[in-house]
Amino acid sequence: MLEHLFNPESISVVGASSDPRKIGHAVLENLVLQGYGGRIYPVNPASSEIMGLKCYPSLEAIPSRVDLAVITLPAKQSVDLLEQCVKKKIPYAVIVAGGFSEAGEEGRVLETRLREIIKGTGTRVIGPNTVGVLFPYTGVNTALTPHDRLFFPEKGEVGFISQSGALGLLVMDSITEYRMGISGFINIGNRADIAETDSLRLFEADPNTKSIVMYLESVSDGEQFFKTVKEVNRKKPVIILKTGRSLESTRAAASHTGAMASNDRVFSGIMRQAGITRAYDETELLDFGKALAYQRPPPGKRVAVITTAGGVGVLTTDLLTSPDNHGRLEMASFNDEETREMRKFVLPFASVANPIDLTADGSTEAYGKILDVLVRSDSVDAIIAYALPQTPKINMDIVGTLKLAASSKPVVAGAIGNRLSKVMLGELEAARIPAFPSVSRTVGAMKVLCEYGEYLRRHRND
Amino acid sequence: MLEHLFNPESISVVGASSDPRKIGHAVLENLVLQGYGGRIYPVNPASSEIMGLKCYPSLEAIPSRVDLAVITLPAKQSVDLLEQCVKKKIPYAVIVAGGFSEAGEEGRVLETRLREIIKGTGTRVIGPNTVGVLFPYTGVNTALTPHDRLFFPEKGEVGFISQSGALGLLVMDSITEYRMGISGFINIGNRADIAETDSLRLFEADPNTKSIVMYLESVSDGEQFFKTVKEVNRKKPVIILKTGRSLESTRAAASHTGAMASNDRVFSGIMRQAGITRAYDETELLDFGKALAYQRPPPGKRVAVITTAGGVGVLTTDLLTSPDNHGRLEMASFNDEETREMRKFVLPFASVANPIDLTADGSTEAYGKILDVLVRSDSVDAIIAYALPQTPKINMDIVGTLKLAASSKPVVAGAIGNRLSKVMLGELEAARIPAFPSVSRTVGAMKVLCEYGEYLRRHRND
Repeated sequence: MLEHLFNPESISVVGASSDPRKIGHAVLENLVLQGYGGRIYPVNPASSEIMGLKCYPSLEAIPSRVDLAVITLPAKQSVDLLEQCVKKKIPYAVIVAGGFSEAGEEGRVLETRLREIIKGTGTRVIGPNTVGVLFPYTGVNTALTPHDRLFFPEKGEVGFISQSGALGLLVMDSITEYRMGISGFINIGNRADIAETDSLRLFEADPNTKSIVMYLESVSDGEQFFKTVKEVNRKKPVIILKTGRSLESTRAAASHTGAMASNDRVFSGIMRQAGITRAYDETELLDFGKALAYQRPPPGKRVAVITTAGGVGVLTTDLLTSPDNHGRLEMASFNDEETREMRKFVLPFASVANPIDLTADGSTEAYGKILDVLVRSDSVDAIIAYALPQTPKINMDIVGTLKLAASSKPVVAGAIGNRLSKVMLGELEAARIPAFPSVSRTVGAMKVLCEYGEYLRRHRND
Repeated sequence: MLEHLFNPESISVVGASSDPRKIGHAVLENLVLQGYGGRIYPVNPASSEIMGLKCYPSLEAIPSRVDLAVITLPAKQSVDLLEQCVKKKIPYAVIVAGGFSEAGEEGRVLETRLREIIKGTGTRVIGPNTVGVLFPYTGVNTALTPHDRLFFPEKGEVGFISQSGALGLLVMDSITEYRMGISGFINIGNRADIAETDSLRLFEADPNTKSIVMYLESVSDGEQFFKTVKEVNRKKPVIILKTGRSLESTRAAASHTGAMASNDRVFSGIMRQAGITRAYDETELLDFGKALAYQRPPPGKRVAVITTAGGVGVLTTDLLTSPDNHGRLEMASFNDEETREMRKFVLPFASVANPIDLTADGSTEAYGKILDVLVRSDSVDAIIAYALPQTPKINMDIVGTLKLAASSKPVVAGAIGNRLSKVMLGELEAARIPAFPSVSRTVGAMKVLCEYGEYLRRHRND
C-alpha cells in the first residue's frame, strides 16, 4: 500500500494544462521538474500533448495501470472524476480543490458523497483541499505552487504530515536554507479519507523515515489516533504542533480545514502520557524533527557545553537550566582528572568548568581534544557544541571533529551569524548533526532529545 | 561627551600591528575598512608606518588631540598605558585585554588599579575584556574579529549594549542577513568604568537611536541602573536579555565577565514595574528592539491578521491568543459593513473573519484593499500581515502597500520561506516594517509592541 503512494509506477494528472495560470499546469510541471522517474499521464480532453507528454481524454483512455491520480479540477467535477478512479482501480487519488466541508453546507454534502464513492473500494483519497504529497526519494511532487516561487526539500529522514497545505509548503521552503531534507510530505487537508492515523502508519512503514512531524489543527478520530501515535512514537519519535489552544484559534481552524473543536487540555494530557514531543511553532516542529531523526536520545540529562564565545556559553547555561515547555537539564560536572586534561588545551584564563569556553583563541584542534575528554567522561550524557567560524582558529574541519564525537555521544550544534555560519550549518546538516542558528533553538533541540530519552527509559518495560 | 565616543575626531590604536595574527592588526584594519573618516594614529614603537598610516612610538608623540584610544596590549601593559591616556586628556579608552576581574585575584587587583588611574580625570574606560564599540554612522569599529570572518551591521535605529563581546559580534553578524542595522554597539565587558547605566544614557542622547537592547549577565549598580532604565524606557523603549535565572547560569557568568550574582526574582520584579521588555534569547532581543524602533505602540490589543496561507493564520491566532511570557492579545472583530466590504475582494470560500485568509488566490491589489478596510476600522489596533511571495499573485509591491498601512496603524509583518521570502524580508527591513521569518517571531514582536503601549498608557500621568 505504501509502495503505490511513496513510489508509484505511474501518475496521472487530471486537468493537466499548458496554460501556466492553471493549477493543472503547475502540478504537471513540478512532477516533471522534481525528476519523477515513472510514467506520467496528463488527462485533458482538449489537448493531445502537454509539455511533450501524450495527453489522454480521460482516465479510462489510459492504456495501463495508474497508481496515483492527481485531480486538479473544481470540487464537484473532482468528485465525479473519483468514480472513474474507482472504476480504474487507482489506489490513490489526490483531490486538490477546496470548497468542501471547510466551506459550508453544500461542501459538506459533497464531501460525504466523496466518502461514499470510495467506501469499500481499493481507492484511497488524499484531501480534498490539499496540495497533495511530496516524496523526494522518488520525485513525486503534486504541489500546486509554481517551482519558481519556492524550493522543495531534498531527500532526508523526517516525515512531515500537515493538515495545512500552504503552511507545509512554506515550512518546506524554509528548511531548504540549510539543505535539510524530508522523507516525505503528506498534506491531509480536509482528510475526508486518509487522516493523521493512516499517514502515521505510512511513515512508520517507510524505511527512510526516522522521525515524524505533524501540524494539526484538530484530531479526527481521537481514540484511534491516540492509540496509533503512542505505538508509533516508541519506534520513531513523533513531534506534534497542534493549534486550538484557545477558543479563537479553534474557530479559525474551523473555517480553514473544516476541523471541529477538540478539548486542548485533554489532548495535551494524552500526548504527555504517550511521550509525544510537542512543538509550539513551525520552527520548533522541524527543529525537533531533525534532532530526533539525526541523534539517538541521551541516556541521561547531564549536558556538557563547549564554545569559543563566553556569552554564548552563559546564555546556553541559562536556557538549559531554566524550566520551560521542555523542562530543565543539568550541567555536567567534570572530575579533577578531566579538568586537568582539558586545561592543557586552553589559555590560562579560559574556563573548563561547564560551560567550557575556549575563548577566541580556541582552535579546531583544541576543540577536538576537549571533545575527546567529554566523550570519555562518565558524567556527560550529551554535548552541546557551538561551531563558530567567526573565531579565527575555528575552521570547517570542526564538522568532522563533531561527527566523530557524535558517533559516541549525542551532539547538538549551534552556529550563530551570517555568511560563514550558514556554510557551517549546511556542512553540519550534511553530516547529519542537528545544528541551529540560535542559542534557544540549539538548547530546545537538546531538551526534547533528553525528554524523549527519559520517556523511553521510563516505559522500557510497558 | 557622547560626541567623543560616537563621533570621534581622531582614534589611536595602541599596539597597532602589520602582523595579521595580532589583535592590533584586526582592530586597525576594521577601522579602515569600516570607512572611519577621522584621523587614525597607529601607535607602535617598532614601526614607522602600518597600512599606509604614519605610526607613532607612543601616545605622547601624537602631535594632536586623540578622542578615542583603543588599547590592544596585554592586561598589565594596558593599565600602564592608561596613565598616558589620562596625561594626554583622551576622553575615551577601550581596553581590549582579558585577564582582569574575570580571571582571579591578580586580575582583580589590576582592575582596581585601572579604576584608580582614571578616578577624577576626564578619561573614561570601556572594558577591560571588551571588543569595544561599533558606530556605523561614523565608521568607528574597534572590533578585533577579522572582517573576513563576519559582517558588521549597517546604519540603523537600535542601540545595542552587551556585556559579552563575542555574543554581541555573533548577533550583529546574524542581523546583517536581512540588512538590519544598528545605531551603535557598546561592549561593556568587565565594565570597570563605563557600565550599563552610562551606556543607556549615551544611547538616550543619541539622535539615531530609537530603541535600546541590552545583553546583561548581571547588574553592577542596581539602584542607579533601575532608576535610569525606568527613566530612559519612557522615552526610548529598552529591551533586556539577562542571564542568571538559575544558579548554574550565575556561576557561568562569574567566570566570564567577573559578574557577581544578583537575585533574578528581584530583578524581574523591578523590570516589570519599570515596563522594561524582557527577551529570553538573543533572537528575541534584536527582534523586539527592531519592532519597538520601527513601529509606535498600538493604542490597544485588538489585532487583525491577514494572510494568503490559511494555516499561517490559524497558527498566528493560536500564538496570539495563548498566554506566554508576553501575555495574550485579542483578535479584532469586524462589523457587518467591514465584512461586506472585504468580501468584495476575495473568493467565495476565503475567510474574512479574523484571521483574514485571502487564500493562494489573493493578489497584492486585493491585499491592499483589505488593508485599507483594516486601517479605517475602529476595532483594529494593530495589524499582523504575512507577505508570502510564494503565492502566485503576491509580488514585491506588497512592501509599498504595507508601508502605506503602517503610516496609519502599527504593522508587523511575517515572511516564511527561503529565497523569495528573504528578498521580501530585506525589502520590508529597508521600508522599516518589522518583519520576521517565522510565525512565533512575528507574533512575539506584536506582543511586546502591545505590552509596551499598555505600560505607557498606564503610566501616562506618573
